[in-house]
Amino acid sequence: MTSNFPSRHIGPDAPAIERMLGALGYRTLDDLIDAAVPEQIRTRSPLNLPEGRDEHRVLAELRALAGRNRTRVQMIGQGYHDTITPAVLRRNMLENPAWYTAYTPYQPEISQGRLEALLTFQTLVEDLTALPVAGASLLDEATAVAEAVLLMRRANKSKGSVSVGRQTGRPTQPALNGRVLMDADCLPQTLAVVAGRTAPLGIKVELVDLHTQRPEDLGDDAFGLVIQSPGVSGGVREIEPWITAARDRGMLTTVAADLLALTLLKPPGEQGADIAVGSAQRFGVPLFYGGPHAGYMAVRAGLERMLPGRLVGVSVDAAGKPAYRLALQTREQHIRRDKATSNICTAQALLANVAAMYAVYHGPEGLRAIAERTHRHAATIAEGLRAAGHRLVHEHFFDTVTVHVPGRAQEIVARADAAGVNLRLVDADHVGVSCDECTDNEVVGKVLGAFGAEPVSDLCGYSHTNHSRALPAQLARTSPYLRHPVFHEHRSETAMMRFLRKLADYDLALDRTMIPLGSCTMKLNSAVEMEPISWPEFASIHPLAPAAQTEGYRQLIDDLETWLAEITGYDRVSLQPNAGSQGELAGLLAIHGYHAARGEHGRDICLIPGSAHGTNAASAVLAGLRVVVVATAPNGNIDLDDLRAKIGEHPDKIAAIMLTYPSTHGVYEADVRTVCDLVHEAGGQVYVDGANLNALVGLARPGRFGGDVSHLNLHKTFCIPHGGGGPGVGPVAVREHLAPFLPGDPGNPGSPGSPGSSQTGAPVSQANYGSAGILPITWAYLALMGPDGLTDATKTAVLAANYLARSLHEHYPVLYTGPGGLVAHECILDLREITRQTGVTAEDVAKRLIDFGFHAPTLSFPVNGTLMVEPTESEDRNELDRFVRAMVTIKREIDQVGAGVWPLEDSPPRQAPHTAEQVTADEWNLPYSRQTAAYPVPELRAAKYWPPVRRIDGVRGDRNLVCACPAPEAFAEVSS
Amino acid sequence: MTSNFPSRHIGPDAPAIERMLGALGYRTLDDLIDAAVPEQIRTRSPLNLPEGRDEHRVLAELRALAGRNRTRVQMIGQGYHDTITPAVLRRNMLENPAWYTAYTPYQPEISQGRLEALLTFQTLVEDLTALPVAGASLLDEATAVAEAVLLMRRANKSKGSVSVGRQTGRPTQPALNGRVLMDADCLPQTLAVVAGRTAPLGIKVELVDLHTQRPEDLGDDAFGLVIQSPGVSGGVREIEPWITAARDRGMLTTVAADLLALTLLKPPGEQGADIAVGSAQRFGVPLFYGGPHAGYMAVRAGLERMLPGRLVGVSVDAAGKPAYRLALQTREQHIRRDKATSNICTAQALLANVAAMYAVYHGPEGLRAIAERTHRHAATIAEGLRAAGHRLVHEHFFDTVTVHVPGRAQEIVARADAAGVNLRLVDADHVGVSCDECTDNEVVGKVLGAFGAEPVSDLCGYSHTNHSRALPAQLARTSPYLRHPVFHEHRSETAMMRFLRKLADYDLALDRTMIPLGSCTMKLNSAVEMEPISWPEFASIHPLAPAAQTEGYRQLIDDLETWLAEITGYDRVSLQPNAGSQGELAGLLAIHGYHAARGEHGRDICLIPGSAHGTNAASAVLAGLRVVVVATAPNGNIDLDDLRAKIGEHPDKIAAIMLTYPSTHGVYEADVRTVCDLVHEAGGQVYVDGANLNALVGLARPGRFGGDVSHLNLHKTFCIPHGGGGPGVGPVAVREHLAPFLPGDPGNPGSPGSPGSSQTGAPVSQANYGSAGILPITWAYLALMGPDGLTDATKTAVLAANYLARSLHEHYPVLYTGPGGLVAHECILDLREITRQTGVTAEDVAKRLIDFGFHAPTLSFPVNGTLMVEPTESEDRNELDRFVRAMVTIKREIDQVGAGVWPLEDSPPRQAPHTAEQVTADEWNLPYSRQTAAYPVPELRAAKYWPPVRRIDGVRGDRNLVCACPAPEAFAEVSS
Repeated sequence: MTSNFPSRHIGPDAPAIERMLGALGYRTLDDLIDAAVPEQIRTRSPLNLPEGRDEHRVLAELRALAGRNRTRVQMIGQGYHDTITPAVLRRNMLENPAWYTAYTPYQPEISQGRLEALLTFQTLVEDLTALPVAGASLLDEATAVAEAVLLMRRANKSKGSVSVGRQTGRPTQPALNGRVLMDADCLPQTLAVVAGRTAPLGIKVELVDLHTQRPEDLGDDAFGLVIQSPGVSGGVREIEPWITAARDRGMLTTVAADLLALTLLKPPGEQGADIAVGSAQRFGVPLFYGGPHAGYMAVRAGLERMLPGRLVGVSVDAAGKPAYRLALQTREQHIRRDKATSNICTAQALLANVAAMYAVYHGPEGLRAIAERTHRHAATIAEGLRAAGHRLVHEHFFDTVTVHVPGRAQEIVARADAAGVNLRLVDADHVGVSCDECTDNEVVGKVLGAFGAEPVSDLCGYSHTNHSRALPAQLARTSPYLRHPVFHEHRSETAMMRFLRKLADYDLALDRTMIPLGSCTMKLNSAVEMEPISWPEFASIHPLAPAAQTEGYRQLIDDLETWLAEITGYDRVSLQPNAGSQGELAGLLAIHGYHAARGEHGRDICLIPGSAHGTNAASAVLAGLRVVVVATAPNGNIDLDDLRAKIGEHPDKIAAIMLTYPSTHGVYEADVRTVCDLVHEAGGQVYVDGANLNALVGLARPGRFGGDVSHLNLHKTFCIPHGGGGPGVGPVAVREHLAPFLPGDPGNPGSPGSPGSSQTGAPVSQANYGSAGILPITWAYLALMGPDGLTDATKTAVLAANYLARSLHEHYPVLYTGPGGLVAHECILDLREITRQTGVTAEDVAKRLIDFGFHAPTLSFPVNGTLMVEPTESEDRNELDRFVRAMVTIKREIDQVGAGVWPLEDSPPRQAPHTAEQVTADEWNLPYSRQTAAYPVPELRAAKYWPPVRRIDGVRGDRNLVCACPAPEAFAEVSS
Repeated sequence: MTSNFPSRHIGPDAPAIERMLGALGYRTLDDLIDAAVPEQIRTRSPLNLPEGRDEHRVLAELRALAGRNRTRVQMIGQGYHDTITPAVLRRNMLENPAWYTAYTPYQPEISQGRLEALLTFQTLVEDLTALPVAGASLLDEATAVAEAVLLMRRANKSKGSVSVGRQTGRPTQPALNGRVLMDADCLPQTLAVVAGRTAPLGIKVELVDLHTQRPEDLGDDAFGLVIQSPGVSGGVREIEPWITAARDRGMLTTVAADLLALTLLKPPGEQGADIAVGSAQRFGVPLFYGGPHAGYMAVRAGLERMLPGRLVGVSVDAAGKPAYRLALQTREQHIRRDKATSNICTAQALLANVAAMYAVYHGPEGLRAIAERTHRHAATIAEGLRAAGHRLVHEHFFDTVTVHVPGRAQEIVARADAAGVNLRLVDADHVGVSCDECTDNEVVGKVLGAFGAEPVSDLCGYSHTNHSRALPAQLARTSPYLRHPVFHEHRSETAMMRFLRKLADYDLALDRTMIPLGSCTMKLNSAVEMEPISWPEFASIHPLAPAAQTEGYRQLIDDLETWLAEITGYDRVSLQPNAGSQGELAGLLAIHGYHAARGEHGRDICLIPGSAHGTNAASAVLAGLRVVVVATAPNGNIDLDDLRAKIGEHPDKIAAIMLTYPSTHGVYEADVRTVCDLVHEAGGQVYVDGANLNALVGLARPGRFGGDVSHLNLHKTFCIPHGGGGPGVGPVAVREHLAPFLPGDPGNPGSPGSPGSSQTGAPVSQANYGSAGILPITWAYLALMGPDGLTDATKTAVLAANYLARSLHEHYPVLYTGPGGLVAHECILDLREITRQTGVTAEDVAKRLIDFGFHAPTLSFPVNGTLMVEPTESEDRNELDRFVRAMVTIKREIDQVGAGVWPLEDSPPRQAPHTAEQVTADEWNLPYSRQTAAYPVPELRAAKYWPPVRRIDGVRGDRNLVCACPAPEAFAEVSS
């Protein structure tokens, strides 16, 4: 039985494909593909992958894999703590396509729901850390610390000069040197990631032992200090003297703090810290074998404009109503490459939103109760162990006790395992026990039993005195938190369910409309692919669980690496990078490592075409490379003459070229092999950005047509949903010679990569397998589609893009085309001449599309004043035609503006989007009718999306940065 | 650790409760309850139930129970076939609160989505059966056959006189006697249920063997014939000669047909059948250990107005736009008791909708392909068995072969079990094998292996010739089906996901608003309660699986029976009834059986108060009882004098009284014990309808204050969601003396009930445990709440009802109150005087509430011209206050009408609900503003529900019965 799934994943059926081909003048899909895809890159051998199976069968196979993982009571800690995801959040958020299929909220008018949730996350972090501005999440705790180190470096110019890459024809020197001090009790994975991130930039890392050293002995040559609180060993230390000493010596301080502990402990902001970072995982996000989890960062006033990642801010719409948007947005999707300070362009939006809603559901008292219960269980265990004669490493702790058990650690951990509990094997003489929300008296008994201690007879007898002894009064939190009404109004499940529905209804996601975003490949995220991530055998595995408990996961990862290598034509794949940006960094670091291993230390130039994704340059800078831009030819391709010239200018200096294929212009460049050859001849490596891999799968393999390394985006080509702005997965794939330089295992920083591997590169994520918890999605996709299904998907994606290009071309010129006058999987619609003639901008068109119920295409990337449209293979012909109708209708409106019928400012495109409130207002003074505003095409009468706000004033929001939930009165004033 | 769950389930928190109590003038909740609940009925001992546990723990316990069930490849057949629920339906429909928390679509304007889905179900059934009118689902196949028998009896007056109960002061004689012929190859459970349903009505059942008898030998004294096609043994017979012969003899014919087989076989409608019935289970609905599944019924022209259950029809709204509604609605919720022909008032809406969407997703070719594959596998098995020398019972079959294996059946079934396959043990000499959508070549090999046959070497060599031999050409279907566009337009998962979202968005369910329906107890259906029903270990169990495979289910059922007995104060509970109506019937049959067993055959009068649910009388009639109505006193209570009089009129004839407690007037009647005593003294039994049990749990037990039997509604009091009109579960609870008369096991009609039980009553459902698949919901609810949580829920429900009654009383008089001037858990708002003065009706208020985003309360039941409001414990004070604001605002609008400011016909209440299309129309000629229409209170600006249609003309729809999906042009004409 062959799989039916491809016919479900691929939108157009056979008759539709025939009609679309007819419109393009091709007889068969293969004819079209032969015309569009240059023979030079074409692979003619079919993909060597397992045949596709039906969803029923694939679910059964995944159940079998899940069955080879073993769930345990997870008390290993080390940055990962078990937590209870309230079922109301799991069902209505994590398992709800309205939430998980949403795109990053770049179009704020159709994103108010998830923006409000992210703002709630920011408010949560701000309140708990007592710092005024928090971002909308980072990739994980370890990379958040690395980002904090770089932020401290940038912000603290007094300690050594800082110059970041400036992108011009001439190379620029990355010079983020200097010295940072790290608490020796930091999470090991944090130390590993920070070491990997700082080394290429020349930053030295020095460890400080807060237990044995004294604040007054701090030197004064470092730019920053990082403290873990509590430490990985569990110790709760007095950190204020250290922060004060650091400040006195001109340093900034970052505190990596446990958010749950902050409900009981004095927050970093009140102790003088400049930055707080950490993980929000234990706020309801499953362990997921290491990820995805939301990292967080909050900063003191004055540093907010240097925050890496995304920041949600409050602005107003055209009616003056408060509205949310991404603040300082130019820093990211449209990264100003000459000012790149971070390469992050994915957040962990979905997980941050879960954490936010967890806090909303529990409220401050609820969170505090969870923290107290967690601490009480840890204290009970400590008491029991002491009573049995064990020595604890720390007197003061929150949730974790480290026990000194000379020579017996292995045995005790094994005994606990046999009782169903995972403890942390610190070394031969020490065992760590981390309590969490799930710990109960039964578990406490098992833990004590593993240590050979008596169960504490009267658990209720646990006294307040003991509690105080473990958490000293002078460190207790006294300030309130989470006073905003949102943390108090949704406490019943009914109220929470409705709140989640209300927020989801504000937004447009794939469950209501195509999201034709160029380069983002918003394809179907099938329910059958999504289901397994909720299963406890995938969701509840600790990343440091013994290998015997993770066989299923490792088989799945092994399969996936093999399959992705086959698809890309590379030899080895690492799934560690938990975002495309991290994949890029890992790939560039591999190139860097490769040259260094060959003694070619001088190769530090990275060639980047002008049309590249902004992240490319930022990643290059972070990998210690100097960026040289290669010009674009008039046809949009790489200018070969300029490439030759740039290579000639820098003999023996070329480290790599980073190119995107098909190009970000949506075109299969025929001479890509020439580009690769030129760079190879110059001794450089070829980095092929896999952002557009959806145009290649089954048709061409970057590893075969010239690439040495690529990163892929599983959240683009391979069906991981965008989650409203994350999670993402950005595996890096390399040819054999680069394999030794793939990322090593951050959890075992001394060891050469994962068990059995010889990967020695710097880790780029906190967990060895990155966002392992969502890998079943891609595994399922590949298993369901099989080689033929995948190839058909690619062909259909190219067909759909060309169908749109052809249908829209007479209304909006298509900017670039390749062989046969065809585009690849996306096309750029050029609005610039239209704007010149009528004043109507690409943004106006994007906003007017909202009135038709569409999410806008990519706006002004890679070319200003254009729209980039990528329909993907998943949209059926009805939806494509609906989009064409909308675009053509808008063009007619633009023509009316051009003809002077409607003044630009009072035209439908400029007034768009229209809210129900506006169109039902008792007064109506616009020159077009209400019906034109609301129902420009009749099909909208059957189902109409109404945006909750009118067009949002972005500039005002950036000028007046407000990044916490506004008081309800802010809304009341307007609506009354 | 005590459970936090009650604080999630119960809406108001402590401060809110305090304020609500303050508004009522009580200091504590207990004070209020002591004042409201008569001491005569009050239980003071706490419920003896396990303490409540947190959701995390309860999920773990349910996983342990699930782990004690064993999944198998299910090939037992006998009316239950494995099927693949497409994940897109599971996630977006079965697991989506927008679908499952919806109420029955009595308010059609906010139910267009589920009505469209149900109409699609009807169209599916009509097309496949080739009969013009199908209902919107029945409870299961066996009861559908029983309903068909009764329909034939009513429709065929030529064969013996028929008079159904007429409800007056004088008893009426049920006299549905006559004779019906049943195919001996009917499903055993069908025969059992039909026997149980016909016996009390005096209808004789006679078996016909279609294999050995001849059509021409049919007698002519029966009113109807029922044929199973294919038979339970798998045989495909020529049925047209039988139908013709039956018609010639003045009989009607019902064909119980397999819907999947009808894609290949000539449909009943083309063979002359009057009625087709069956199950839609194998269209994507999990086996669920027997239920819930949707039964179906379709009839020829002329019988449509006699269809039992619900029927969706097409009408138009106030703008002339096509709109859906329940047709002939007066037959059910507002059952005209004097014309009761069926007691059904629950459908299997959610499951019917799954079946409809399964057909939409697969389309006619897809369904046919599934049927062909299923048949091919059966034929391959047949071929292999014949080749191995086995004798098959039938030459012609669709999916099931019965094999003659003298003396070896047990052994072969055991061998298959060991290979992971369940076969049907027909008897010691016969084994049945049923193929289905999930059967694949590997399974075929296992089955053949169990019989000791060689695997068929070349499965692909299976020839068309063989196929034809098993399915004779003259029986092949030649007519097309499913030509409506809906069965062709949603084939990709993306399209299906969006279609489901679009339909869901049309509707209002609990995920957006309270549904304050009196007597329906629309409380929270918690996600944690819902999750387990999707687990394969609950979803994929065949109801006739060996006991060793169902330990978990049986433990869960045992727990539940024990806990429900404790809650109600009865001694024994049966979970078999899959709707409240079936519970009533089972309870009355138990009473009937009890009197009969004591030789008191003359006791056939059932006393029913005037305010009773319509179903009560209908059930009594179907149980062979005569109904005598007891009058209502002016205070709404049972008129004790009239009761005494009625008892006096019928010495030794009183079988029972059926009363609802608290009464349907929403009042705790203080003298209920007196009522019970009077009936008991007269030798009658007391039936307490459990519809209002939400006012009693933890406070009073019907089994202790006078009841002998009750049915409960797990879909009211115990959190099973309403599913848009089903499924329901209606357990029957009895005192010890009635226990022997509880329903027996329909799957083993010869045996005395379930294993180990001594229940000998007639079965009322097809499966022994009814809708077993959704019982984990109630189990979870009870486990999560514990005795204190349950009692607190009841108290809060009473508080909320009284809070609303007090808040609204000055605007809308509360019709009845009980002790302390208090109501119980619901209250009746009397609109009659308002209507008299202003013309504004209760219906107008109900429709105007839609504009505020509310589902209406119960309309005109039990008293015409009133609204019955039941807030339940799950609504928090914000939502209660929002409702009060809406009702008060509407009252002000009514006052404007009364004052002559707005003419009635052009007033907001009469024009309501207002669609976005109407309010954004370019013309606006109403005397109130657009803003008044759309945003009568400011909070609506933040989130507004827009109904898709204006008020629907019900009468027109009933006059012009259209019960299939209308052509798209029907809509185009209006919207263009």
